[in-house]
Amino acid sequence: MIPEQQALDGAHLIGVDWGSTSLRAFLIGADGAPLAQRANGNGASVIAGAGAFAATLDAVAGDWMRARPALPVVACGMVGSLHGWLDVPYAACPADARALAAGMLTSPGGAVSIAPGLLCQDSGLPPDVMRGEETQIIGALHLQPQLAEAACIVLPGTHSKWAQVRHGKIRRFATHMTGELYAVLRTHSVLGRLMEEAPFNEAAYLDGVDAARRHGQLGVAHQMFAARTLGVTGRMAPAALGDYLSGLLIGHELRAGLAWRAQAGLDNTPLTLVGSAELCRRYQLALRHYSGERTLVLDNTAPAGLLLLARAAGLTPAHSSTLESA
Amino acid sequence: MIPEQQALDGAHLIGVDWGSTSLRAFLIGADGAPLAQRANGNGASVIAGAGAFAATLDAVAGDWMRARPALPVVACGMVGSLHGWLDVPYAACPADARALAAGMLTSPGGAVSIAPGLLCQDSGLPPDVMRGEETQIIGALHLQPQLAEAACIVLPGTHSKWAQVRHGKIRRFATHMTGELYAVLRTHSVLGRLMEEAPFNEAAYLDGVDAARRHGQLGVAHQMFAARTLGVTGRMAPAALGDYLSGLLIGHELRAGLAWRAQAGLDNTPLTLVGSAELCRRYQLALRHYSGERTLVLDNTAPAGLLLLARAAGLTPAHSSTLESA
Repeated sequence: MIPEQQALDGAHLIGVDWGSTSLRAFLIGADGAPLAQRANGNGASVIAGAGAFAATLDAVAGDWMRARPALPVVACGMVGSLHGWLDVPYAACPADARALAAGMLTSPGGAVSIAPGLLCQDSGLPPDVMRGEETQIIGALHLQPQLAEAACIVLPGTHSKWAQVRHGKIRRFATHMTGELYAVLRTHSVLGRLMEEAPFNEAAYLDGVDAARRHGQLGVAHQMFAARTLGVTGRMAPAALGDYLSGLLIGHELRAGLAWRAQAGLDNTPLTLVGSAELCRRYQLALRHYSGERTLVLDNTAPAGLLLLARAAGLTPAHSSTLESA
Repeated sequence: MIPEQQALDGAHLIGVDWGSTSLRAFLIGADGAPLAQRANGNGASVIAGAGAFAATLDAVAGDWMRARPALPVVACGMVGSLHGWLDVPYAACPADARALAAGMLTSPGGAVSIAPGLLCQDSGLPPDVMRGEETQIIGALHLQPQLAEAACIVLPGTHSKWAQVRHGKIRRFATHMTGELYAVLRTHSVLGRLMEEAPFNEAAYLDGVDAARRHGQLGVAHQMFAARTLGVTGRMAPAALGDYLSGLLIGHELRAGLAWRAQAGLDNTPLTLVGSAELCRRYQLALRHYSGERTLVLDNTAPAGLLLLARAAGLTPAHSSTLESA
């Protein structure tokens, strides 16, 4: 990061990645890099009503907006959901930055352009949805242009998203509730009772990944019971059981996701992980164990994605070396 | 049921099916049928200490025991676990009534013989355990002797048990945490938020079963997200989402369990369901939709199993038409 005044002078966009439980606001440079960043806990599920959204934005980025009143503001994520600031209808797959930009709506008052989420509707399957991740994916394609032609991009998390990219478009995607499943099992099921808090146990974690890889056909609802029986029979220490379960659930995500990728003919493209370093490391470890493959890891791609959306919407010049004001 | 005095006169055994959350005590006749039955909420996870177990047994069946002091008392279930009355070590698969009887231990005070649970240890797999269901399976084999040679027996529940029977022995089994998974997802995950209480919706339930059958390779942690997206996009009514999820999870249990049965060469034997009528009906519906197969359904087989264990232990004459006292 650079001094704030310098960031303000260099910014092409104020971008907001506004999720369920928190938001991050960015001053974004011409190349999509975040020049300054602020966080706030007023996620879209935490506050309600247009006034609360406007007040939160003002608290986070009001000084930026007043210092650079001509700078566009673009937001993505759950801020655009039914219970967000404004219900922005989903765009439909396949979609690129242009299609997403075409679906943007302006917040009440007109201060912010809010990106649509994305809907995936494969024939014969239930719909799938994302809000926010589509912008991260668009950002990843900007930062790593070689991915645009054909890629499989994974965003690990509470609800992991696997996305197939073809010819610059998000072609389809699938949500895996891996993180939430782990949390509810650990906190509310019989499996959590034996578990003890402990530092990451890589061996137990990889044992879980391996169980999914070698015997996944036995079913995850069966295999997860081992996180109890291994403890009850004294074959695994209580401190290791949590990471065994984590490995098992992530292993099942890989089992399903890698087969899904292969069926789409994308198994020759390296998997790209987008997310926090710690979570990506966990997935990298599992992937190396599961399929032996190496991965590309990208951290925060939302700012680049927000810039791409702003450009596609004509809010920011596509190729500009001069600022609209000084 | 018959008048209590007649039941007392005809009983060969006092049997107790003592689970985690409740217990049922039976006067059991020569053919394994329950002649009288009483229930109590003092399950093994509800009470602690030998005194509490003895007092509960006395409250439930003390009068029976005093009226027929020579009648043996046999209990099965979580009463024999580490946190039960007495920690009775697991017997090991393959096991029949004789092997289970050999593992029985006598409660402090000597009033009750407590059956061991059963441990399944297939090479290369984590161990699996049951306590109580082994007695129900032994009972099923007694009530339906044609099952003893080769059968696959399913006990649906919070933790469903699938057991393979060969040559009169429980050869191996697998636990599926289907019921608990449904409960924690409905109560504690994002999936429960849209769901409304409603009468059983068979169409939505079978839609869920069908999703597991046709697209189960996509992974249950992915497919369960449809119980949200179908609601969010207005394609399924909130009142139907719970049964959709139930069908999906039971469908995945069938997917894994039927493949496991086939791999053991047991796919030509009809599946036998043992459990409550309502839950068995739910599984029957799913099975008919999944594989088109008809099933044998047995209700309460624990009394017959307890009698078999008592006979195998020499506590009750194997073939007796006279009572040991009158």
